[in-house]
Amino acid sequence: MAMGWFYLSVLALCSLGLMCILSTIYWISYWQGGFAWDGTILMFNWHPVLMVTGMVVFYSAASLVYRLPQSWVGPKLPWKFGHAAMHLLAFILTVLGLHAVFDFHSRRKIPNLYSLHSWLGITTVFLFACQWFLGFAVFLLPWASVRLRSLLKPIHVFFGASILSLAIASVISGINEKLFSSLRNGTNSYSRLPSEAVFANCSGMLVVVFGLLVLYILLASSWKRPELGMQAERQPIWTRGWAGTR
Amino acid sequence: MAMGWFYLSVLALCSLGLMCILSTIYWISYWQGGFAWDGTILMFNWHPVLMVTGMVVFYSAASLVYRLPQSWVGPKLPWKFGHAAMHLLAFILTVLGLHAVFDFHSRRKIPNLYSLHSWLGITTVFLFACQWFLGFAVFLLPWASVRLRSLLKPIHVFFGASILSLAIASVISGINEKLFSSLRNGTNSYSRLPSEAVFANCSGMLVVVFGLLVLYILLASSWKRPELGMQAERQPIWTRGWAGTR
Repeated sequence: MAMGWFYLSVLALCSLGLMCILSTIYWISYWQGGFAWDGTILMFNWHPVLMVTGMVVFYSAASLVYRLPQSWVGPKLPWKFGHAAMHLLAFILTVLGLHAVFDFHSRRKIPNLYSLHSWLGITTVFLFACQWFLGFAVFLLPWASVRLRSLLKPIHVFFGASILSLAIASVISGINEKLFSSLRNGTNSYSRLPSEAVFANCSGMLVVVFGLLVLYILLASSWKRPELGMQAERQPIWTRGWAGTR
Repeated sequence: MAMGWFYLSVLALCSLGLMCILSTIYWISYWQGGFAWDGTILMFNWHPVLMVTGMVVFYSAASLVYRLPQSWVGPKLPWKFGHAAMHLLAFILTVLGLHAVFDFHSRRKIPNLYSLHSWLGITTVFLFACQWFLGFAVFLLPWASVRLRSLLKPIHVFFGASILSLAIASVISGINEKLFSSLRNGTNSYSRLPSEAVFANCSGMLVVVFGLLVLYILLASSWKRPELGMQAERQPIWTRGWAGTR
């Protein structure tokens, strides 16, 4: 029963994450003219897709590595490498997403980093970079003491969840901004809720639902790795199923 | 030392919350023409001020009641009443903030609830209402069993933090939307970052910093009420100072 619930949740999460990416691709392909890497508006179109994919879905997948019960036993180092490598992939996609919008702006002589969306977005990416380098230096390289790791772990976990929350806020303000700037014609204005507006709003709300589910799994004690002497208090979600196999 | 750190944090938090409210009032008063309750754009102007005050600052203050060490000893019921009453006040301010924008829209024949900002905002207020009524019914009225309360408490705490995160995302997308729609003139356009844009962007980022600090205090174990047998593990922030007075 616990194993069934676990796999059902993983399946729901993967499906939701995939839907977030696919719905953003569909929105841009169907209503915004598709994609290119040529400095035009079609290059800008990569921005929302790469940010949702990198900063939300891949980032979430990387963050949830330690919620897999398989990571709770045996050597932890391979899981740490997986966690860091997946976050690096998420970061590369994010940087490509930023490059798409910066290159489009510079070719069209549009100033960069003026909107609140861009201020929050660039702060989020900066925090992500700091979090990755600090995590790599403290938790993956061998020099840090156990005491330093114990001290930094709750801060690392808190900022991990915070960066995801800020990424979701950036995505919401970004979709809102894009729809305000592109749906301006009288019959097709945003306030008349044309089909593109309904679809893109739903995509944004899907990102919110996905993000809340990821944050719940990240923060709920029943999903965390059981610590010595804490099994009874924390009630790990897969204790019974996993206990039977080890 | 622990007491000094505690009071310093409370002071920093109160100052930040006050700055969030005052900077929103200043932005609207200085650049957007001020306030009125007459169905004009001056009535709309109450919307950002009331939402930041109710949904972010008062909501946060109400959520943090149980982080005061004074609430850790003696009867819990008065603190529960305080928690519920402060949230009710936050909710009333929020409803007034919604009324300001709905009334302005209806008089100007502008459709309601079309933007992603409004979809997320109304969802957040709906979740807040559900959270309040469920919290009132389960944790304040006497009929619920201890088992039901234990079962719902982590969900109540999770949604408490989530609603604040969604409120911050709504505020960010709302400020962004307002600046895009009001800063349109060539010399005063948003992309040229006039002083209003810099000030309002900074106000938005201030709300983000305040929200992150509140979420840290809500979620960090060192700020939580110590539970029986958990004192050593959780290291409550004020154990020594408080232990000396009881």
